[in-house]
Amino acid sequence: MQDIHIMPWPQEIKTNTGDFIIDEDFSVFIHGNTDEYSRISKSAVRFIRHMTDKSGVFVNEGFPNATGVSDATASLNIYFDKEAELAMGIDESYTLNVTDAGIEIRALTDVGAMHGLSTLLQLIKVKDGAYAFTGVQIKDEPRFVWRGLMMDVARHFMPISVVKRNLDAMALVKLNVFHWHLSDDQGFRVETKMLPELYKKASDGQYYTQEQIKDIVKYAGDRGIRVVPEFDVPGHGTAFLTAYPEFASKKDLDYSIERFAGIFDPTLDPTNDKTYEFLDTLFKEVAPLFPDVYFHIGGDENEGKHWDENPEIQEFMKENGLADNHELQTYFNIKLEKILAKYGKSLMGWEEIMTDNMPKSALIHSWRGINEGMEPGESLVKAVKNGYQTILSNGYYIDLLLSVEDHYLVDPLPAVELSTEEAGRILGGEATMWSELVTPLTVDSRIWPRTAAIAERFWSAQEVRDVDRMFERLNSMSQYLELIGIQHIKAKEYILRNIANYQDTHGLRQLTTISEPFKIYSRNAGGTEYKTYSPFTLFADACTSDATSVRPFRKLVNAFVDQKDQSVKEDLEHYLQSWKDIADQLKTIQPNAPLVSRVLPYALRVQEISSIGLKAIEDGEISQEALQQLEALIDNKEDPRVNLDVELAIAKDLMKMAQYLAKK
Amino acid sequence: MQDIHIMPWPQEIKTNTGDFIIDEDFSVFIHGNTDEYSRISKSAVRFIRHMTDKSGVFVNEGFPNATGVSDATASLNIYFDKEAELAMGIDESYTLNVTDAGIEIRALTDVGAMHGLSTLLQLIKVKDGAYAFTGVQIKDEPRFVWRGLMMDVARHFMPISVVKRNLDAMALVKLNVFHWHLSDDQGFRVETKMLPELYKKASDGQYYTQEQIKDIVKYAGDRGIRVVPEFDVPGHGTAFLTAYPEFASKKDLDYSIERFAGIFDPTLDPTNDKTYEFLDTLFKEVAPLFPDVYFHIGGDENEGKHWDENPEIQEFMKENGLADNHELQTYFNIKLEKILAKYGKSLMGWEEIMTDNMPKSALIHSWRGINEGMEPGESLVKAVKNGYQTILSNGYYIDLLLSVEDHYLVDPLPAVELSTEEAGRILGGEATMWSELVTPLTVDSRIWPRTAAIAERFWSAQEVRDVDRMFERLNSMSQYLELIGIQHIKAKEYILRNIANYQDTHGLRQLTTISEPFKIYSRNAGGTEYKTYSPFTLFADACTSDATSVRPFRKLVNAFVDQKDQSVKEDLEHYLQSWKDIADQLKTIQPNAPLVSRVLPYALRVQEISSIGLKAIEDGEISQEALQQLEALIDNKEDPRVNLDVELAIAKDLMKMAQYLAKK
Repeated sequence: MQDIHIMPWPQEIKTNTGDFIIDEDFSVFIHGNTDEYSRISKSAVRFIRHMTDKSGVFVNEGFPNATGVSDATASLNIYFDKEAELAMGIDESYTLNVTDAGIEIRALTDVGAMHGLSTLLQLIKVKDGAYAFTGVQIKDEPRFVWRGLMMDVARHFMPISVVKRNLDAMALVKLNVFHWHLSDDQGFRVETKMLPELYKKASDGQYYTQEQIKDIVKYAGDRGIRVVPEFDVPGHGTAFLTAYPEFASKKDLDYSIERFAGIFDPTLDPTNDKTYEFLDTLFKEVAPLFPDVYFHIGGDENEGKHWDENPEIQEFMKENGLADNHELQTYFNIKLEKILAKYGKSLMGWEEIMTDNMPKSALIHSWRGINEGMEPGESLVKAVKNGYQTILSNGYYIDLLLSVEDHYLVDPLPAVELSTEEAGRILGGEATMWSELVTPLTVDSRIWPRTAAIAERFWSAQEVRDVDRMFERLNSMSQYLELIGIQHIKAKEYILRNIANYQDTHGLRQLTTISEPFKIYSRNAGGTEYKTYSPFTLFADACTSDATSVRPFRKLVNAFVDQKDQSVKEDLEHYLQSWKDIADQLKTIQPNAPLVSRVLPYALRVQEISSIGLKAIEDGEISQEALQQLEALIDNKEDPRVNLDVELAIAKDLMKMAQYLAKK
Repeated sequence: MQDIHIMPWPQEIKTNTGDFIIDEDFSVFIHGNTDEYSRISKSAVRFIRHMTDKSGVFVNEGFPNATGVSDATASLNIYFDKEAELAMGIDESYTLNVTDAGIEIRALTDVGAMHGLSTLLQLIKVKDGAYAFTGVQIKDEPRFVWRGLMMDVARHFMPISVVKRNLDAMALVKLNVFHWHLSDDQGFRVETKMLPELYKKASDGQYYTQEQIKDIVKYAGDRGIRVVPEFDVPGHGTAFLTAYPEFASKKDLDYSIERFAGIFDPTLDPTNDKTYEFLDTLFKEVAPLFPDVYFHIGGDENEGKHWDENPEIQEFMKENGLADNHELQTYFNIKLEKILAKYGKSLMGWEEIMTDNMPKSALIHSWRGINEGMEPGESLVKAVKNGYQTILSNGYYIDLLLSVEDHYLVDPLPAVELSTEEAGRILGGEATMWSELVTPLTVDSRIWPRTAAIAERFWSAQEVRDVDRMFERLNSMSQYLELIGIQHIKAKEYILRNIANYQDTHGLRQLTTISEPFKIYSRNAGGTEYKTYSPFTLFADACTSDATSVRPFRKLVNAFVDQKDQSVKEDLEHYLQSWKDIADQLKTIQPNAPLVSRVLPYALRVQEISSIGLKAIEDGEISQEALQQLEALIDNKEDPRVNLDVELAIAKDLMKMAQYLAKK
């Protein structure tokens, strides 16, 4: 099982010794539907392309059900009963059998069969000098019906091609909901014919045409992925009010779309009947673009400042017996719920929409936690106890840039007593890619491969939570993700080339193995450092969470300190020496690379730190003076933050090693 | 001038010492039109983004004409008289002045001003540890009005995102015609509502919707680029006949789109009136999608085999006094010319359309040369002497994978006596990217950076033809092309990772520095080796023409042999040693990388060759026996062609060195 690197891990899996070798005779036969434009057929074509790209094998038949291919001769037979109409809760189960004699995928629905293909692709391995599919017997189905990725295309717009490659990646890891955050203070991203000022005045020309939206919805559907749009109201409303200031809660402000990040005051006026006409017009036009029944209205982070400041709104609240802003927002949401119902949509919103009068048909999106002064998943429990269906995003905020381990160990089912019925209302979860600090260039490296681990949490059994195994498999997933088009590795290498001004990048690359971007929004404290158009081609943008040397180094330190294993000394020295050398290499390229000048002070600190560590391990001891010096260097408050925005991710483990050597 | 790496080289350029440093106060002011959705404004926004991406500078104002920015305070002032309506022959001139006090672009049209921005971006250099624009005074305009790139999206489909990034690159090097080869034997790539079978049956689902085409035309127009569509008839017609076999010259064949490359027989029936109704229906629908007046009908490589075989067609020819297939095709073309005229289009076609009765309004696209048994540009001269306007592609077939030097030195003006009037009919040229052997992954590396040199040929003065200087500048262009989104470097690195199965790629990368893909279609002799869906992730796909070590090594060998310069011995040894080492590194990764097994025999041959060369240079002599051995190794007929398809590009120079040492 150790060499099987599937993510999400299947519900049942047995290995056998009969691997299937990939050669030119490879062929596919689909039973039941041989229409070449069917979802399963297109999926099989993509599968064959990916297999040949990976293996370099010149297959004779590049399409399923080619002339002369039959169920008897095909390498891969695919059986399914019916084409699923995409909706929450469809059957997604499949079985997959690989032996040296052939491969078989069976499913109730075509979507299930497509999941089988995603699994099969991940079974490619090297066997006797050739590529082969590992012999397995798999029976699989998802634990949760709602397995989502949210992409915020408002803070930084993401072109169609970026969305499409991320949909491909979602399909690879069996995510099935694409939550499209289409409006926010920084932009409104949808063409509307009825309300054209929205995209004309509030998008910088960066928006999706309706045809492009239909194209994306189709593309997602072809991959078994539902699309849930979000238009965030009444807060996060600067873009709305840039186009139509007449619906603002605070009049005579000069609204223009935000260039910074943060929580802003502009809010739609819930006391103005015209506001509802306006939203009715918008929803009526956009609702048909999105066939899914769920429609996300945001509803989060409205602090109501502009409501407090408007006497007419205060008056309205009094007249209507609305005790506070919360009740006023409820009034607003319930109106929206009715509008959406007219267009066949069920309302979904961030947890703030859960108020006393909200109909139980609303879907509650739980997001707040420790960072917002609440218990993690507090609203999730409240929702199911109040009879609402819910999904969880708290714990899956990938833009926090925490270790994937932190996300992986969060379970959508909270550790509290719930009835079966209550637990059943937890539909799943969503990873959220807020885009204040990502661009089309860097977004892939922020989502992937880490979201594969979250996808596993949503799909696989609750007990699948071995972190070491997860990291091993994640490394393979990174390669499969590049195979299907994700640009995380390519973009990183490009950023390093750009920083080095096309000189040797190996010092910079080495430095990324121990450096992680600042976490929990501290890179952009208060949202005031980076504007939308600031450069995201900096060293921090080439770095990722879970820098690659951190865990291996930690294991060595733990062996050395906890197990008193002297044999790891050489490896520790090797690491420290390689980090010590970085600054010298950077010095050679710095004269012709202005961006390296920004990195160099940090690299010099790494050099000092590594030198002390190296001397300590070589000497087998460290003086109190050197230890304090090391501590001071690591705690350095003069962090070159503005230009670098990274933390030295091996610092804690290095201190552990040094403290151990000091005591000896 | 040596540190200025602009391509195309401007008509007039003077340097001054006043470089303009890029800092956070950088701002842009556009005079005349401040509409944020104007072409020039969007172009300026892209310019600012590229400048910040490159420099890492956090500019305060990310948009032109921001509040508080005036002509007095702006770093860059842009002046132009009018927005050009895109058409052949519009004014594209501009002047650019950069001093330490500020930057000024002046042009008659917005398109000229945009060219100024392309030039300015290429003036970024390192100065005193910061990025700056080099101080210059430039006066510039194009030599030819038609500067094109043709992309074949029939043999391998190219998604919208691929087309868009190549349009960005075209704008960077001031190309102004995108020739879109939309149909061929391997596919028909346009949605047609009137003739839906075309894209439904003959595209494998890979086609552009009409909305996407409009989007591309708009995108191109925003970059000052005209779009000329090509629907290739009556030959190259398999896709047409797959959808509508009733218009075939040979009946009762089972037409289906081609998977191989080559010249095929399926041809539209020019004797059937319905064929013209069919094409009229098609052209009527698609013509409005393309605002440009020119419409390319192909017309090439029809060998008329199916005409010869059809007695009814032979009968028709007799009845209508058509002496041969050539006259029959003329009959066809003239009918098309009339149809296109109805829709306001001028006919353009490959040189075969130039027959006696073809109206002089037709534009002749000259393409045949030595490889087709003709003098280079023969048809070009014939065209202008016959009164036709013409453009040249012979010499600019970038898919031949020749050295860029070969293309660079071909001038659109032939070396024959032409009157001013005749010469004036030569409008320019087009580089042609036929896509039998390229995919969306590799196409960028086949087009770029080399097409920048061809763009220079079309734009710059005829005398600009210093090959060494061109190569120096091309190297910088490669970096600017990556900055604006071209994926040539990223794709190569990815292919190497894939071959190495994510192990160390440095041996493979080293091998690409001396290996070039087979040239002049010999990689796919007869078109039978590679199908459309064969893998293009092989070693040859990571290699490019003008492998990077070839010219430096040649210079060393020439110095050593021709100038008897002993000081280069060490450098020669260093090269040979590095090539000798490649195979050993590949051996370490081969057990876990099946695709490396294919490369290894070649690397071992390189090792033997390099060893002999190294010993020769170390010894200062080579035995006749060793020389013969070297010769045999280099001439090796057992080339691992099928799997590798590359040639050892330093072989000739190495032999020169060895032969010199043998004589000593």
